[in-house]
Amino acid sequence: MGFFLTIEGCEGAGKTTAKGVVLQWLKAAGREFIETREPGGTPLAEELRNLVLSEHEEQVSDTSELLMVFAARCQNLTQRIEPALAEGKVVVCDRFTDATYAYQGGGRGIDEQRIAVLEQLVQGDRRPDMTLLLDVEPELGLARARGRALEQGGSLDRIEQEAIEFFHRVRNVYLQRAERFSGQYVVIDGSQSIAQVEEQILKALQARLGNSFE
Amino acid sequence: MGFFLTIEGCEGAGKTTAKGVVLQWLKAAGREFIETREPGGTPLAEELRNLVLSEHEEQVSDTSELLMVFAARCQNLTQRIEPALAEGKVVVCDRFTDATYAYQGGGRGIDEQRIAVLEQLVQGDRRPDMTLLLDVEPELGLARARGRALEQGGSLDRIEQEAIEFFHRVRNVYLQRAERFSGQYVVIDGSQSIAQVEEQILKALQARLGNSFE
Repeated sequence: MGFFLTIEGCEGAGKTTAKGVVLQWLKAAGREFIETREPGGTPLAEELRNLVLSEHEEQVSDTSELLMVFAARCQNLTQRIEPALAEGKVVVCDRFTDATYAYQGGGRGIDEQRIAVLEQLVQGDRRPDMTLLLDVEPELGLARARGRALEQGGSLDRIEQEAIEFFHRVRNVYLQRAERFSGQYVVIDGSQSIAQVEEQILKALQARLGNSFE
Repeated sequence: MGFFLTIEGCEGAGKTTAKGVVLQWLKAAGREFIETREPGGTPLAEELRNLVLSEHEEQVSDTSELLMVFAARCQNLTQRIEPALAEGKVVVCDRFTDATYAYQGGGRGIDEQRIAVLEQLVQGDRRPDMTLLLDVEPELGLARARGRALEQGGSLDRIEQEAIEFFHRVRNVYLQRAERFSGQYVVIDGSQSIAQVEEQILKALQARLGNSFE
């Protein structure tokens, strides 16, 4: 039986740290896994990611953005995620459809039902088995993300440049979904020390995936 | 009042000839118009067109292709088509959603209902006011299209490389839709001489758009 684990959270919430902890635990447990991200995960999906995150001379309509995200997701699902799950592997995915509800739904204000229609079209019944939500105040997260971009000499992408209210709406949707889908979500306070974040993640992994190795 | 005119048909059916006739008539009538094509019509939509028509190392899922086509359509609609119609212009569009029903529905076998869901999501109630369908036997159309590609030193794109059965399915859906939406469609036999094709198009334009200049 495969296991579909997604890692969610705003910019600078600590997703990369969390992913590192997860991957290390899976290696130590001898569990087969693949790692992917969204939007992206296949060459075509990564091209779509670039279109989503780049600046364009024209205004990008919210619905176009939504459709590009789901087009990329469809490639990642059919080419990588579903085959890996069918082989019994753990799939670790940096962002998935919960991010679409948070960013395009909460952030951009697209009606949840429009997203649900595409979720059904592309995924059928496929949903993550577990979602680690790294949660921080957007002010803290963005300060971290911007610091990182500066350090790396890079710049913020089209979405990272949104105003702070955008990220508050994103966070609110994440938290609402964590309450509504409490069996799927594990919420981790990303403002804690790395050691504390790590401890919580390990506990969650042990609880959901540990038994299979007993 | 704007007018939304689309030109449909398989490869080599004579769409380019038809478009020339339409544009010349509009100029002579002194009618303001814009010309666009699908997938494409804006820089971002053209980038999506390239992704749809290019070869990829990975298999492109039918649903991804469908979503990319509608993402491009959404840009073309919001950035070009709707604004032009709102200004009272005629919009001449080389292929539109009828092509999606024909190619992705008929050709690829995607359920019509899945396309209808996206049509509603992206277009709401917007439909073409008139569709000129250039109809030819796929064998003839493809021979023309291949001859043209050879002449121009180019090669066939990902869709033009499909087997002949694919284009028979495409044509069948076009003809079925022409029957179902007989108020929208004008079917023109593309195997006729150019003079005959031109005459039929002019008659159709006069009937639908001629009155506005009396």
